Amino acid sequence: MSALRRDLAVALVATGDELVEGRHVDTNSSVIARALIDAGFEPRRFTVLGDDEDELVRTLVELAREHGAIVLTGGLGPTLDDVTRHAAARAAGVELVQDEAVLADLRAMFDRRGRTFSEANARQAMFPRGAHVLPNPNGTAAGFALEIGGALLCALPGPPREMRPMLVDHALPRITARVVGLPCVERRLFHLFGLPESAFADRAGDWMARGANPLVGVTASGGRLSVSVRAEASTRADAQRVCAARGAEIRTRFAEWIFSEDEPDLAAVVGRELIARNITVTLAESCTGGLAAERLTRTPGISAVFELGFVTYANRAKVELLGVDPALLAAHGAVSSQVAAAMARGAAERSGARLAASITGIAGPGGATPEKPVGLVHIGISADGVVTTEERRFLDLGRDLIRDFATNTVFDLLRRALVRLPRDSGAPTR
Amino acid sequence: MSALRRDLAVALVATGDELVEGRHVDTNSSVIARALIDAGFEPRRFTVLGDDEDELVRTLVELAREHGAIVLTGGLGPTLDDVTRHAAARAAGVELVQDEAVLADLRAMFDRRGRTFSEANARQAMFPRGAHVLPNPNGTAAGFALEIGGALLCALPGPPREMRPMLVDHALPRITARVVGLPCVERRLFHLFGLPESAFADRAGDWMARGANPLVGVTASGGRLSVSVRAEASTRADAQRVCAARGAEIRTRFAEWIFSEDEPDLAAVVGRELIARNITVTLAESCTGGLAAERLTRTPGISAVFELGFVTYANRAKVELLGVDPALLAAHGAVSSQVAAAMARGAAERSGARLAASITGIAGPGGATPEKPVGLVHIGISADGVVTTEERRFLDLGRDLIRDFATNTVFDLLRRALVRLPRDSGAPTR
Repeated sequence: MSALRRDLAVALVATGDELVEGRHVDTNSSVIARALIDAGFEPRRFTVLGDDEDELVRTLVELAREHGAIVLTGGLGPTLDDVTRHAAARAAGVELVQDEAVLADLRAMFDRRGRTFSEANARQAMFPRGAHVLPNPNGTAAGFALEIGGALLCALPGPPREMRPMLVDHALPRITARVVGLPCVERRLFHLFGLPESAFADRAGDWMARGANPLVGVTASGGRLSVSVRAEASTRADAQRVCAARGAEIRTRFAEWIFSEDEPDLAAVVGRELIARNITVTLAESCTGGLAAERLTRTPGISAVFELGFVTYANRAKVELLGVDPALLAAHGAVSSQVAAAMARGAAERSGARLAASITGIAGPGGATPEKPVGLVHIGISADGVVTTEERRFLDLGRDLIRDFATNTVFDLLRRALVRLPRDSGAPTR
Repeated sequence: MSALRRDLAVALVATGDELVEGRHVDTNSSVIARALIDAGFEPRRFTVLGDDEDELVRTLVELAREHGAIVLTGGLGPTLDDVTRHAAARAAGVELVQDEAVLADLRAMFDRRGRTFSEANARQAMFPRGAHVLPNPNGTAAGFALEIGGALLCALPGPPREMRPMLVDHALPRITARVVGLPCVERRLFHLFGLPESAFADRAGDWMARGANPLVGVTASGGRLSVSVRAEASTRADAQRVCAARGAEIRTRFAEWIFSEDEPDLAAVVGRELIARNITVTLAESCTGGLAAERLTRTPGISAVFELGFVTYANRAKVELLGVDPALLAAHGAVSSQVAAAMARGAAERSGARLAASITGIAGPGGATPEKPVGLVHIGISADGVVTTEERRFLDLGRDLIRDFATNTVFDLLRRALVRLPRDSGAPTR
């Protein structure tokens, strides 16, 4: 964080009964905060209020005293419980006036869609006097920017797909233009798999100390770590240099675990690499029940390398669809490295794919034995006919999290197999 | 919402740099707000702050003036950036004192886990003088309840799995006990599929007007609507009566779309019904790539009725795994009612399941033609050998949302097929 400069301090406000009643979670403020930080600002406080005009007036006046800017989302709709335009006008001590250009645009939009334009809709053309209209190409709610007691209020619509472009194209440029000597901020992200958060913190040492510049931060989810580097300097070049230097150290120190520098989704990284290298893949899933296939097929264009997947939940399915030897199942049980290997081999053979992964495990809550507790997972990988297996024992954090960890592990193992797979091993086996 | 009684007004606060920097979204406040509303309180304002002790002190003092209670999450950890205990003590004008019982518990917990107890850990046994400790069976961070200027502050840990039990078992009872004449609130939920939100609002009329009692609210996601009824009265019996009456009206007016009164997950409703009636099921997925199987297999115990699923992304997979006639694919294309029917029939035959569902569609962004736009989905259902198909044209809201809508539609069709399936149609077909 930068020094305590009021002009860099920003307050975020979200309005709506559905927010303060807990029916919707305000995710806009987090998105806006990240964008502000990247631009060199310091988000200090989020406030969530119901559709209460008096409360909003009071809050805006108070926040304007201590912040250089206020970014507000919500309350710009056509109905009476949309109080943002009235509250902003009262907080600034101005009246509401009609914007003829916006009114004409709204009428034209309604005409194009064959909808009747009502008095209520005309409310969306009212703005506090002196406000700059922020256009909304994705909806009927135009935003506005308005000075309130030395702070710039930017009021944006609540729907994220309308809010985001308005933030980037109109609000941020206006907020930035008012500030002299804005620090230049550079940011990089690294995505890791398989390293515990505490182990990262131990190795990162004082990189993560509050106020450090560059500052390293980390968040963990499902075995993945997202590591951010944020560097601040008075020139863009200096910030880039400082950020790049710390980034290079991270690359060296954590090379073993980094799977991406831009894409946080391990399945997407694997999917894109498979497509780029034209390597076919299949999946044979037991305890994850289709989760790995679902994640992989989120990648557009994956059909070029993924023809089919198997959800073989029952033993009979493993035998019939994958050709697993019933004797193996009888001798070792379905959750075993032997069966994981046979599933991967069978999936590769029956699909003809160069890469195959299998997952068999105990996601709970039932099915555990003293030797095979909830969280035990065996994964098989077949790469050009060479089969390897891995065993993992995840904490029993519940069925959903075990399946999430197992699926991420599969994609990490596929990624590592992919690195080793020769580029020139020729056509798929069929 | 009830009348403007200060003793019923509650403020929620969440602290943490990761929140105000947008790296994590505060979901705790929404959970707490819903619990408070159900208990008859009125959440008025959420505030999110960084790990800034001075800001937190000032905020607590201000909020205590206008609210009967403040529920705060976060900042109870052992490190120096955990400022909640210090800030609360300063806001109340008291010092921090060590709680010997909590200290002994912490030492014992560390001993059991074979971890070294450090000076930092002892911080978690410090509480503002006069605070009541709120026990945490799920972690090291005990919470506390403390009077600040006439308001009760309840400080809870940030991790949801530690926060929730402490909220329900300790914080809510303390907040409730201070209030005289708390209105009795009854709440019911209804989960619907297939009705647009605007159509619900039209039919619900003034049930949804602000301040109505009972009050009906609705939230929409992926084709599903969650409809809540909230009734408030001075006695429990009256609240229950009012709530039940509106509930009965909803059941009558929306019977066609209601799939559950408690479980919001359509796949879980279907999964449990399949298990309860011992009806076997299989899935053959193209555009959803395993998403339906993944959702279905989230239900514990589903292995009793779900043996296997097919992810048949490519035409060849539809032919080889499901026995779809290549001539059908050539004549109608993979996204057609004919192929959907053949997929469902093949999946039922090859798995031996009584119920089978198939999904084939265009999730985008590629693959569309003028006749077959992104969002076109064909679904086949085979029930005891009788095959039906449905066509849906979803808006192009992006690949993920189209897959979500398609999957929810499959489970809605399975649910309807299940209602019609005779209980006594005997054993599975194999």
